[in-house]
Amino acid sequence: MVKMIALYKHPEDIEAFDEHYFNTHSPITAKIPGLRDMKVTRVVGNPMGGKGKYYLMCEMYYDSHESLKEAMKTDEAKASGKDVMGFAGDLVTMMIGEEVDE
Amino acid sequence: MVKMIALYKHPEDIEAFDEHYFNTHSPITAKIPGLRDMKVTRVVGNPMGGKGKYYLMCEMYYDSHESLKEAMKTDEAKASGKDVMGFAGDLVTMMIGEEVDE
Repeated sequence: MVKMIALYKHPEDIEAFDEHYFNTHSPITAKIPGLRDMKVTRVVGNPMGGKGKYYLMCEMYYDSHESLKEAMKTDEAKASGKDVMGFAGDLVTMMIGEEVDE
Repeated sequence: MVKMIALYKHPEDIEAFDEHYFNTHSPITAKIPGLRDMKVTRVVGNPMGGKGKYYLMCEMYYDSHESLKEAMKTDEAKASGKDVMGFAGDLVTMMIGEEVDE
C-alpha cells in the first residue's frame, strides 16, 4: 500500500485546530477519489516525557503510486490541499510512504 | 488502539541503516511482549518534490496505554531501546499516539 502522510506540529489554538480539522478538513479529504482508507492519530506524548514536536498524524491510503498521482489531480484533492494550506500551512509536513511487507 | 511511533530522519549511510534496521533492530523489537502489530513505512518523497526530512517510520501497536506501559518495562523493550540509541540515536523521534475513531 502507498500512503500519503500528513504530520502536524502542535497548533497554538488546539480547540480551533480540532474544530476545523475534524469538521471541515477531514470531510473534504475523505471525498478524494481513490482514497481507500484514512487513519488519524493523535499524538499524546513521547516516551521520554514532554509533549514532543507533533500533535496529529493522518495516513491516507491508496492502491498504488499511480492511483495517488491520479487522485492528486482531482478537484477534491485540490480543495483538500487548499484547505490545509489555509488553516495549517505552517504546521504540516507531507510525506509519501510505502508500507514495507516483512 | 495505542501506538508507539518511531520516525527516522535520513541516515547518512542508507545501506548500513537498512541492514541494521531490518536484520537486527526489527527482530529485537518484534519480541516485545504485548506488541500486537508493527508496520514499517519507507518514506519515498513528498508531494512537493524532494526527499523530505524523514526516511522511515515504524508504528508499533498495543492494546492500551496500560499494556504499552507494561511492555516498556520488559527486558525486550529495553534491548530494543538500547539498540535504537546505538545505531540511530541522532535520527529517531519517538511518539505515543492514539488512533482516532471517526
